[in-house]
Amino acid sequence: MSWLTEDFLLHNEVAKRWYGVAKTLPIIDYHSHLPPDVIAENRPFSNLYEVWLAGDHYKWRAMRAAGVPESHCTGAATPYEKFQAWARTVPQTLRNPLYHWTHLELQRYFNIRQPLNESTAAAIWEQANQRLQESDLRPQAILQKFNVKVLCTTDDPADDLPYHRQLVSNSALPFRMYPTFRPDVAFAVQQPDRWRAWVQRLSQTANIEVRNLTNLLAALRQRHDEFHRLGCRLSDHGLNQCFAVDGTEAEATQVVEKLLSPKSNLIDGILADRFGGFLMRQFAEWDFEKGWTKQLHLGARRNNNQRLRELVGADIGCDSIGDWPQVDRLCEFLNDLDHRGTLPKTIVYNLNPADNYAIATALGNFQDGSIAGKLQWGSGWWFLDQKEGMTWQLNALSNLGLLSRFVGMLTDSRSLLSFPRHEYFRRLLCQLIGHDVVQGELPDDDELLQPLITGICFENARDLLGLKLP
Amino acid sequence: MSWLTEDFLLHNEVAKRWYGVAKTLPIIDYHSHLPPDVIAENRPFSNLYEVWLAGDHYKWRAMRAAGVPESHCTGAATPYEKFQAWARTVPQTLRNPLYHWTHLELQRYFNIRQPLNESTAAAIWEQANQRLQESDLRPQAILQKFNVKVLCTTDDPADDLPYHRQLVSNSALPFRMYPTFRPDVAFAVQQPDRWRAWVQRLSQTANIEVRNLTNLLAALRQRHDEFHRLGCRLSDHGLNQCFAVDGTEAEATQVVEKLLSPKSNLIDGILADRFGGFLMRQFAEWDFEKGWTKQLHLGARRNNNQRLRELVGADIGCDSIGDWPQVDRLCEFLNDLDHRGTLPKTIVYNLNPADNYAIATALGNFQDGSIAGKLQWGSGWWFLDQKEGMTWQLNALSNLGLLSRFVGMLTDSRSLLSFPRHEYFRRLLCQLIGHDVVQGELPDDDELLQPLITGICFENARDLLGLKLP
Amino acid sequence: MSWLTEDFLLHNEVAKRWYGVAKTLPIIDYHSHLPPDVIAENRPFSNLYEVWLAGDHYKWRAMRAAGVPESHCTGAATPYEKFQAWARTVPQTLRNPLYHWTHLELQRYFNIRQPLNESTAAAIWEQANQRLQESDLRPQAILQKFNVKVLCTTDDPADDLPYHRQLVSNSALPFRMYPTFRPDVAFAVQQPDRWRAWVQRLSQTANIEVRNLTNLLAALRQRHDEFHRLGCRLSDHGLNQCFAVDGTEAEATQVVEKLLSPKSNLIDGILADRFGGFLMRQFAEWDFEKGWTKQLHLGARRNNNQRLRELVGADIGCDSIGDWPQVDRLCEFLNDLDHRGTLPKTIVYNLNPADNYAIATALGNFQDGSIAGKLQWGSGWWFLDQKEGMTWQLNALSNLGLLSRFVGMLTDSRSLLSFPRHEYFRRLLCQLIGHDVVQGELPDDDELLQPLITGICFENARDLLGLKLP
Repeated sequence: MSWLTEDFLLHNEVAKRWYGVAKTLPIIDYHSHLPPDVIAENRPFSNLYEVWLAGDHYKWRAMRAAGVPESHCTGAATPYEKFQAWARTVPQTLRNPLYHWTHLELQRYFNIRQPLNESTAAAIWEQANQRLQESDLRPQAILQKFNVKVLCTTDDPADDLPYHRQLVSNSALPFRMYPTFRPDVAFAVQQPDRWRAWVQRLSQTANIEVRNLTNLLAALRQRHDEFHRLGCRLSDHGLNQCFAVDGTEAEATQVVEKLLSPKSNLIDGILADRFGGFLMRQFAEWDFEKGWTKQLHLGARRNNNQRLRELVGADIGCDSIGDWPQVDRLCEFLNDLDHRGTLPKTIVYNLNPADNYAIATALGNFQDGSIAGKLQWGSGWWFLDQKEGMTWQLNALSNLGLLSRFVGMLTDSRSLLSFPRHEYFRRLLCQLIGHDVVQGELPDDDELLQPLITGICFENARDLLGLKLP
Repeated sequence: MSWLTEDFLLHNEVAKRWYGVAKTLPIIDYHSHLPPDVIAENRPFSNLYEVWLAGDHYKWRAMRAAGVPESHCTGAATPYEKFQAWARTVPQTLRNPLYHWTHLELQRYFNIRQPLNESTAAAIWEQANQRLQESDLRPQAILQKFNVKVLCTTDDPADDLPYHRQLVSNSALPFRMYPTFRPDVAFAVQQPDRWRAWVQRLSQTANIEVRNLTNLLAALRQRHDEFHRLGCRLSDHGLNQCFAVDGTEAEATQVVEKLLSPKSNLIDGILADRFGGFLMRQFAEWDFEKGWTKQLHLGARRNNNQRLRELVGADIGCDSIGDWPQVDRLCEFLNDLDHRGTLPKTIVYNLNPADNYAIATALGNFQDGSIAGKLQWGSGWWFLDQKEGMTWQLNALSNLGLLSRFVGMLTDSRSLLSFPRHEYFRRLLCQLIGHDVVQGELPDDDELLQPLITGICFENARDLLGLKLP
Repeated sequence: MSWLTEDFLLHNEVAKRWYGVAKTLPIIDYHSHLPPDVIAENRPFSNLYEVWLAGDHYKWRAMRAAGVPESHCTGAATPYEKFQAWARTVPQTLRNPLYHWTHLELQRYFNIRQPLNESTAAAIWEQANQRLQESDLRPQAILQKFNVKVLCTTDDPADDLPYHRQLVSNSALPFRMYPTFRPDVAFAVQQPDRWRAWVQRLSQTANIEVRNLTNLLAALRQRHDEFHRLGCRLSDHGLNQCFAVDGTEAEATQVVEKLLSPKSNLIDGILADRFGGFLMRQFAEWDFEKGWTKQLHLGARRNNNQRLRELVGADIGCDSIGDWPQVDRLCEFLNDLDHRGTLPKTIVYNLNPADNYAIATALGNFQDGSIAGKLQWGSGWWFLDQKEGMTWQLNALSNLGLLSRFVGMLTDSRSLLSFPRHEYFRRLLCQLIGHDVVQGELPDDDELLQPLITGICFENARDLLGLKLP
């Protein structure tokens, strides 16, 4: 297709020139949901479905909206039937980021330049499947191809991290894979069965039997230490809103006792909230001590479709944007940590773009001069990871904080085919800056602009996050 | 005026070319507040005031802001005095959609190309009034002139629909007029007198005496059936927020008993909310059974000025945008219906643009693959029915859903002079698409773009809504 | 620097032509936080730090985010060390309004065209300090240089206004300085010590001993009268949200009694809210009687960092945007006054841009035709006082109200170096209008556009606010 050219998204010479710089920079993909086993075991993908559709709830969502039955999204249809259903859907995604992503991915990985649709589906399926057998499309080769130096996965503290342990000793690899400490289930005290099963797994992994709050914290701490040993430098939390800040140790003790007692163990919402606050304060303390960076993903309303939840499971494209107030609780949380002297470096991602300005300014209250860019407002997340959402984020960050200190892009993806999102981001960034220069709103001064662009694309993440590079 | 040219809003050749296609397509005006009697009786309008100012709260609002006293908005001044006051206001509306609408309407209906202002008022009044006596500006001729194939009015179930009945048998007309089932008063249980008067009217119209919940539902069902017989395929609800989903039949029974008892009948807010939820579930079931499309208009804060409410009445330009949370209740409502298997096709309109992203993604949770575009996010409504608001909606829909499945524009108007809003929308749509093509963000491929444009302008509404065309 | 040219922000000939008109118009700076003593005493500034950095929390915020320790923001470092720290920060503020403001201010006041950074800091410090000793950079000369005809400061009713009294009799000055009545502490009943100290000052200033509500109101009324005598025509309130409207005199009496009693005097939140409502109604009545304009600054979340609050104090750059609901309370407040017939002219500023549309439409409900532009939606405030925020405000106001009646820009500044913000605003306004003309969305008609531009830049504020010009 002639439309997806070298100059895609670049509309002036300044933008093109800076993209020429940006595209050469390595990638630190500091937040993703890639499966560690796939990276470590490095087996070739069997087909395009496996690598592209099997786990992609963005695509399922679009397919359902296009009238594709569930059988062909997550159900019993064959991989090729599902791929065909996707191919039929693609022309209906015009102006959706899926349309750009799809064709960028076909082009960058498979050198396929045809538009995907019903009539090209068969040929593309063949060609891509063949290419997937070549060695340069094996998982580790893909990382190398895209100049990915560091890849962070997202991991439960109860996870034993066998694949991270396997790779940590292999210093010959041109990339590093690190875990991220994401203890979401620890907070799920209103789902007692799920919580208890998780505690049991945690006990085994940490080799500490959890019978009370003290043990629980010890086990979590053991895992936090072990994650650190494996190179982890980030934690992560998915929250509707921040928890109340004033939960006490006594309350947390009570919650754990209740949950581990054989009798009644329903935790009410207020207590669950206070327990969450107590735990978050603990985690923040550990993150701070180790120089980690904490990530908060705020405001997703998850698993909204009960029918598909029961039929298919969680996280299958029935999530959306919440409209809960965020600011009071976020400010109280950050202030509590700042006042205790245990505020770690923090990246906050909000899902509702209506919160952009409020969140961006909330973070500015807690910049403390100790580390440049200590508080970070994360790049456009999930539904905001597209041209409009990313532009809003870049412009708001520019106006309300220091764009020059931004740690930039991440894939947040479950698929190894998503690395062109870094390219997309870099094109957009260079276009914004190029546009400003051409419009006379930024000086056309290489000494000023070079650190801005290399900082956002690579150096800021490198310098702030402290992840060891190969 | 030279500024309102053929290429208005079209800034490149691709946009112009596609508008050439779009402008030839018929109009399905699936949501309006046009008075059925005016259409059915087809009498000529007596003057420009009657057809243009008499019911237009947008204009009154602008006039009040310009310092025009109430006498010349809704009060005792003569039609011509009011028209003069409006003419004096027009130059003060620069950059407001009223400025564009005003001159588009003068041009398209009356071939008047002068700007309206104090000094042109007299001549324009004369010229327009003369034109209004010609046969091609009678109500039905206007519909034909603008290629309106279907017109949906907005109607109370207690309404006997005499004008719809009158037209339904006239198959010679080049358009169809259908009612829309809008039972807002059914929910007004906290205004017992208003509610009881409405029940009385409903009893008569349905010929079912309403003494309890069972009768009430029977009467409403009878009307739902009758609306269907007259071609109705849409329902509509104006709500601050969605109601609670878990209202029971017992609670609803209690509410109706209380309201119909001669004694105290105050319904508290919680019970009213649960009654609303119960009723909405019933209506949704009927809509689903008949293949109707349900419309939800969410988030208007109405009749805010008590003084003018007492002086002039309701709906006179003192409404504005609410900032209540919308998402939890909307998701719960849609999920409840989806889980029961009774979720009808649904169009949700939000009034607060800060809710755009949250609402648009909420709908995606309930696309079920049964019908392409089953859940629709409605076009920019009321204060959002202007270039900025429509652009936001089109861009957000593009990024978060399938623009290609969009049912497109509607007038939502009380005036027969509002059909150029479809033109305005089509120009804007073609400009957005043309811009993307020229910028290299969409392929310049007729096979892809043709169904996108014809779909949004006409075919999607035709195919999804199931309204019979002439 | 070549980038900050004469045509800064102006991208077409129409825009440039209209800016040629706009730039000649005088300034009415109807809302600022300039210190009256500095204006009245008219002493030369000792150095660039004093006039530019000493009170500027915008700069401190950026410096903290850039890793500058508190010692060099608000702490013990020398003025020159702090200036150096700021100079090192400037290149990191690219795309932040600070970057534009900084270089506009250096250029307009000091004729310095070099970019400020670490290596130019020393020379700029020297050059600017020298210039500051010249007579045309004394406070009053600065006002004259920028064609400021009226300057409104922001003042506590307990303030004796010695500097305003000093200037009021000096009719030879080419500008007028008026106080603004801002009784924020009157509402701080949940900080009893602060409130009592304020009441004591008020008693002295008004020469009325405050022992109960009646005395309190008498003292405040005395000050309101005295402010009026000194030329004040605006009041101002900084509120999270509007207060409840239904506070009674009995409740207010009780609050004052409690606070002035030697015993326990904790006021709970509900009572404080109702007291606030009672007081606001009183103030509105006085404002209405005197033809004043009331300003409401809604939605700032202030002093969020407890550590810096304790270390440095209030209002030092740890404020941000709240996300509280605004509409219900604002509409109830305005409706209550409108219904009582005591609604003064009102300007509402919101800090959260997500509230833009809701606030702008809320105001439209209370335009009463008595005065054109009686209800005003204020220009982009604080974090919104930059190109993106101002553009949103101008576009939303255009779409939802009458841009032509807008009272336009104000500095809201604590520094005499901020007057180029009027220039910035005027350039932006002319660019928006020029763009619309070039795009064919506005007629290229001088008779229409001239009053639009001169109105917004000068005449509307002059005509609406009733501030006496020199």
